[in-house]
Amino acid sequence: MSILSDVLATIFARQTRKALPPPPSARSTEGLIQDLLSTSGEISGMTAAAHILDRFGKLDDAGKIAFFDHLAGDLGISPDQVRAAIDAFEADPNPANYARFLAAAEPARQELARRLNRVPGATPQLVAMRADLLRLIPRKDARARIDLDFQHLFTSWFNRGFLVLRPISWESPAAILEKIIAYEAVHAIDSWDDLRRRVEPEDRRCFAFFHPAMPDEPLIFVEVALTRGIPGSVQKLLAEDRAPLSAEEADTAVFYSISNCQAGLAGISFGNSLIKQVSEDLKSELPDITTFVTLSPIPTLTKWMKEEGIDPASLDDEALRATTARFLLTAKRGDGMPFDPVSRFHLGNGAHVHAVHVGADTSDKGMAESAGAMVNYRYDPETFAENHERFAGDKEVVASKEVRALLRAKAAA
Amino acid sequence: MSILSDVLATIFARQTRKALPPPPSARSTEGLIQDLLSTSGEISGMTAAAHILDRFGKLDDAGKIAFFDHLAGDLGISPDQVRAAIDAFEADPNPANYARFLAAAEPARQELARRLNRVPGATPQLVAMRADLLRLIPRKDARARIDLDFQHLFTSWFNRGFLVLRPISWESPAAILEKIIAYEAVHAIDSWDDLRRRVEPEDRRCFAFFHPAMPDEPLIFVEVALTRGIPGSVQKLLAEDRAPLSAEEADTAVFYSISNCQAGLAGISFGNSLIKQVSEDLKSELPDITTFVTLSPIPTLTKWMKEEGIDPASLDDEALRATTARFLLTAKRGDGMPFDPVSRFHLGNGAHVHAVHVGADTSDKGMAESAGAMVNYRYDPETFAENHERFAGDKEVVASKEVRALLRAKAAA
Amino acid sequence: MSILSDVLATIFARQTRKALPPPPSARSTEGLIQDLLSTSGEISGMTAAAHILDRFGKLDDAGKIAFFDHLAGDLGISPDQVRAAIDAFEADPNPANYARFLAAAEPARQELARRLNRVPGATPQLVAMRADLLRLIPRKDARARIDLDFQHLFTSWFNRGFLVLRPISWESPAAILEKIIAYEAVHAIDSWDDLRRRVEPEDRRCFAFFHPAMPDEPLIFVEVALTRGIPGSVQKLLAEDRAPLSAEEADTAVFYSISNCQAGLAGISFGNSLIKQVSEDLKSELPDITTFVTLSPIPTLTKWMKEEGIDPASLDDEALRATTARFLLTAKRGDGMPFDPVSRFHLGNGAHVHAVHVGADTSDKGMAESAGAMVNYRYDPETFAENHERFAGDKEVVASKEVRALLRAKAAA
Amino acid sequence: MSILSDVLATIFARQTRKALPPPPSARSTEGLIQDLLSTSGEISGMTAAAHILDRFGKLDDAGKIAFFDHLAGDLGISPDQVRAAIDAFEADPNPANYARFLAAAEPARQELARRLNRVPGATPQLVAMRADLLRLIPRKDARARIDLDFQHLFTSWFNRGFLVLRPISWESPAAILEKIIAYEAVHAIDSWDDLRRRVEPEDRRCFAFFHPAMPDEPLIFVEVALTRGIPGSVQKLLAEDRAPLSAEEADTAVFYSISNCQAGLAGISFGNSLIKQVSEDLKSELPDITTFVTLSPIPTLTKWMKEEGIDPASLDDEALRATTARFLLTAKRGDGMPFDPVSRFHLGNGAHVHAVHVGADTSDKGMAESAGAMVNYRYDPETFAENHERFAGDKEVVASKEVRALLRAKAAA
Repeated sequence: MSILSDVLATIFARQTRKALPPPPSARSTEGLIQDLLSTSGEISGMTAAAHILDRFGKLDDAGKIAFFDHLAGDLGISPDQVRAAIDAFEADPNPANYARFLAAAEPARQELARRLNRVPGATPQLVAMRADLLRLIPRKDARARIDLDFQHLFTSWFNRGFLVLRPISWESPAAILEKIIAYEAVHAIDSWDDLRRRVEPEDRRCFAFFHPAMPDEPLIFVEVALTRGIPGSVQKLLAEDRAPLSAEEADTAVFYSISNCQAGLAGISFGNSLIKQVSEDLKSELPDITTFVTLSPIPTLTKWMKEEGIDPASLDDEALRATTARFLLTAKRGDGMPFDPVSRFHLGNGAHVHAVHVGADTSDKGMAESAGAMVNYRYDPETFAENHERFAGDKEVVASKEVRALLRAKAAA
Repeated sequence: MSILSDVLATIFARQTRKALPPPPSARSTEGLIQDLLSTSGEISGMTAAAHILDRFGKLDDAGKIAFFDHLAGDLGISPDQVRAAIDAFEADPNPANYARFLAAAEPARQELARRLNRVPGATPQLVAMRADLLRLIPRKDARARIDLDFQHLFTSWFNRGFLVLRPISWESPAAILEKIIAYEAVHAIDSWDDLRRRVEPEDRRCFAFFHPAMPDEPLIFVEVALTRGIPGSVQKLLAEDRAPLSAEEADTAVFYSISNCQAGLAGISFGNSLIKQVSEDLKSELPDITTFVTLSPIPTLTKWMKEEGIDPASLDDEALRATTARFLLTAKRGDGMPFDPVSRFHLGNGAHVHAVHVGADTSDKGMAESAGAMVNYRYDPETFAENHERFAGDKEVVASKEVRALLRAKAAA
Repeated sequence: MSILSDVLATIFARQTRKALPPPPSARSTEGLIQDLLSTSGEISGMTAAAHILDRFGKLDDAGKIAFFDHLAGDLGISPDQVRAAIDAFEADPNPANYARFLAAAEPARQELARRLNRVPGATPQLVAMRADLLRLIPRKDARARIDLDFQHLFTSWFNRGFLVLRPISWESPAAILEKIIAYEAVHAIDSWDDLRRRVEPEDRRCFAFFHPAMPDEPLIFVEVALTRGIPGSVQKLLAEDRAPLSAEEADTAVFYSISNCQAGLAGISFGNSLIKQVSEDLKSELPDITTFVTLSPIPTLTKWMKEEGIDPASLDDEALRATTARFLLTAKRGDGMPFDPVSRFHLGNGAHVHAVHVGADTSDKGMAESAGAMVNYRYDPETFAENHERFAGDKEVVASKEVRALLRAKAAA
Repeated sequence: MSILSDVLATIFARQTRKALPPPPSARSTEGLIQDLLSTSGEISGMTAAAHILDRFGKLDDAGKIAFFDHLAGDLGISPDQVRAAIDAFEADPNPANYARFLAAAEPARQELARRLNRVPGATPQLVAMRADLLRLIPRKDARARIDLDFQHLFTSWFNRGFLVLRPISWESPAAILEKIIAYEAVHAIDSWDDLRRRVEPEDRRCFAFFHPAMPDEPLIFVEVALTRGIPGSVQKLLAEDRAPLSAEEADTAVFYSISNCQAGLAGISFGNSLIKQVSEDLKSELPDITTFVTLSPIPTLTKWMKEEGIDPASLDDEALRATTARFLLTAKRGDGMPFDPVSRFHLGNGAHVHAVHVGADTSDKGMAESAGAMVNYRYDPETFAENHERFAGDKEVVASKEVRALLRAKAAA
């Protein structure tokens, strides 16, 4: 599989390199935007588009904010036009009236983004533009509304049907691998040797989603350990001196790290089918693997304990285990959803809380965030559709008998 | 290059085959649509989506019309909600109000299409769905408005930036080549031998645009002959017994056939940069090629002559040439645009009318449509940006001195 | 898999095209051979080599015979030098003496072929050169000895370890598929539609061995039908109107046609592992396939019957079946090997005679060669190593109980 | 191009993994060799071959020497048989007698190697076997003659016509790149960051020859710097903080490091066309590059100076420059060839001595070996065929006027 992915990269990368824009004109960026939006010629528009992207990339933060101001102001919708159009449509819902309504209801900045995207290599530039937007314009600022237009387009462009799942291995291009090092957000990768330990041994796998127009940029990736039995310590799982298992011996796939890579794609959902697809692929390659679990951090456990007035240092292992179970099963946000974001992610995907471990992540970060506790969320094909419904519908946190018992133990205590 | 394209095909083709939907439930299709739109779970939604697509594919025409009725009716916008939302937005254009407006202004059928598209292999099925829509619902029927939603999505999905230009050659997969035979709309391809004459000789090229999610389906393709000098007869150009030129000897690239392939993508513009990109690619491969022209049919010439009361049979070659020039330069539709659709396409791309030929297409079709006349539109990098502006702005038909002279000759006659 | 093969083709094809030789000099071909053999410079030799190959390709048959004369005469070994070298080696078998012996014992024409082969694209030209040799020089002619040098080299170059097994499908390049049509030697392929019926349906497969330096040239290919049960009629197997089986339903893989493609590789064995490897690949893709058989012609049956004074027309089905069994099990050449060449091939590979069918090939060719009879040779992983030893050692024809019973029935009759 | 190469790798790598040998039998290795040589069955032989290779890989040095003993003794030629065969051939040079002679003159160990090589993945194992041979058996030991058989086969197998030139870049698989780090023999690569500086910037290139059956193993590679003008200091060339040139600005390609990778392919010549082919490829990509030179070490300069009684420390720059010129142009081995091995390599390829630099390699190694001096050998397409003849024929060292002037200056001094 690995060449297929490399090929994909190359096809698009080549296109990118070929079509470089001609030298910039003296026209202002706002002028170029006007040109691009007014021309019916795809070809002449291409040059304007290339310049706009090029100039945006070179702007400082103040310049970028001004650019976003322009998008938010001049390139927005006109309420009057929308009202006129919806009235006409209601009176006679014929195609022409509907077309006029759609035109009025869509701000020009959406069309601008589509036209910018015609330039070879523009997609990652537009993703970076949104990353700038999220960084520079506060979420409550009225101008932040233009992010909804980016979201609207990116949701179409990065539709799950357009993504490609690619294995990441020691055979992958160094240019991709260095991004895995950079983006790993859960258990940091120190060096190329550390990376190699995560992707080369027969019992280690890594998979990422890619978009054909951003072939060098993983969107999200998951690291997997193949094991016998369900592990309860990430340090043991990643120990430098462990003896690798042969892939055929494994009965369990452990998803021990999932990292989003693109700030500019925040909130665009494509991760929740990653685990499912990787599970299916692994199962078809290695039929003896029957258990699919995570070994997940609990990043908000100590924060919640502090709020609850619990001192982690005061708890022995048993008490910490019970407290962790209580946190996972009962701690909620205002909206009734679990307090912990990792919990929300996996439960939302249909996983259930399978087991709780103490002394499971003894790194500084692990101790600080969760007093060393970790949790296995289990992806059981038999139950996850139902789990998902119970969680999505009733906000019910499904858990194994063992974890529920911990809760009762605690209650009894 | 040819493998790159094949690889692309394979990557996606594989994904398609793997993820077959589970057996269908007893739920109605409308029920499944409701499930799909209401679930927040991408995974559980996937199954509903696969069934909806599967069922639609098996419907007869009456069933399909009923399906479109449902899209047009229940899955449309609500004018009241739109009005409420735009009023609130006008009062306070904050992100939350803008989000509510966008939600109200977008019909549920757009979200439906996006969710259907998450299924591997769904994109070509959705394109086929629109082909059915265009075939079954008359253009003036109010329900035809739902086509605007398809157009909206497809314009995003088939953005030029996501398309890949692939050469088509005798090295291409037979599965692709048979589609070239099937889709050729200008000069029919009789047989595999005929096809081979179009793609295998050194002085023949063919290029197509593909979308990564439809790797086996060319979207539009162009056939090119490399020649010395500009040819004036398509039968000579395609003669079975001609001696092929070596590619290095050629100074001219002749685009003698452009065919759209996907009924379901009608009106989604991606063809107008095809010729430009092919020209650039050829130029970089063969720097001696400096002239880029078409050898184009004039499909509405005799129709117009009949309207004008001119009997083609009564004209000698010179008169026919002059009449053809007059047609191309002066015959207009009500909106001031050229009468001939091929003319509108090439002039709209920035080409100009370069030369007119009689006895140029002596096939039955050529004689019937244009009394055997053909035209070269020329793509001159020096002038096409300006040509495009003159045509797009002033509807001016730019032509060479020679063709303009024919017009004056005629006028003088 | 199909792209992988296409890629392979492209890599080498490209190299070929790039390195075209400069224009030929006035030096004679024999002079160029001398230059090539005497230079120590790989680069300057390359030009001479390219010219030699180029010129050979343009020679008429008389010219080619003269070329072979030169190889046989001036570029052979010198018995005196061989004797001197072997005596010196016997006296002191040190490396230097061994090197001198190897040099004396190898004719210069072998080194010539190796140096010619350095030119990009030379390998297929050298294979074609041997095809000319086999065609032009009678087998008993003394000069035919130079074929042993080609054989020696080709056996090294086309070592099984260097070959690649590639599936041939409707996704394969037309340029490869047309060669399948041309080379099919058992059941002729009439047309592209006929070809498509052999490679496109889910229950039809085709595989070929390729060499990396001849990526567009299949060396040998096998056509496979996936069936339920073992078929007894090739016309039924290939019927145009048959309903294809889904690949998952099949329990049997039928090798119904094996064709060598390269006259210039006659006698270079690489076919005998083709069936084994294809069987393994199919088994790993489709575990339900457990039976691997051929449906083979018996090309010498009627010829043998004529020699034995048996008139096929006089035999009813039962008698023909028994006679065919007798032929397969008992008819031998002078050297004790089976009379029938197809039989020798499959038995030599470890297959056994599984079943005999009458009315199984009713084509003109089938009736003429074998009165319509065919045979299944079965490749049973459990027994083929033992079968091979029994056949290779004792020339024993292993057969199923049923076929052996036919023989006894006949004997009893 | 980079994916093409990766694909190549994958095709063969996959084959390797699939065909694992069954568990070993109790038969001795010599017995297995006998089985392999006596069987006519390719398939049954395959298992024996896989075991032989597997066992050899696990032998200690003493075991390997015993294995080589067996090859040298029992699997050699018989002088008596050779003499009988050559006499018969002389009496009647018919094909049968020639066949008998070829059989007698080729030791069984060559056929053994060919049969071992049929196992998927065997080629690199056989190359490693020869590396062991060269390491364990002294060159003058009589048993070292078996190396000539390896050489004979490898010369056929690694024929230039079978090699593929692949660019090595930051897009190459990490598994290949780590080998570049390991094999770099001229200017050591410290780290992944150092490697990246050698392959990622636009003005840095790297190319390697690969064999299709060893796709993960570069055979030889060259590192190239694109520069304006000819550089005279390797430290400046490789400086971490240098500003990269755009590839279009460069007029010179500097081959600053060439490294052989495979000890088991020592003496198998494929390197001498590497520079030529890389030059051609670069020229076709970047037509402005017109100068092709090396920046080469002079590894034996101080050694020779010591022999000549010259103390490097006593020389000023000018004197060192003149002495270096004298060394390069006049210092010879007993056979009249240049004293310096790097000199022999480049002059043998047709390069000439272009310029001499002092203070050019100030690393410890550079100071120790050549007192910091380096040399540019220039590959001039206009002169290299003639240079090669002058060097190969008359052992003449061709040098630029400037370098020759240094020599005269020295002589005059």
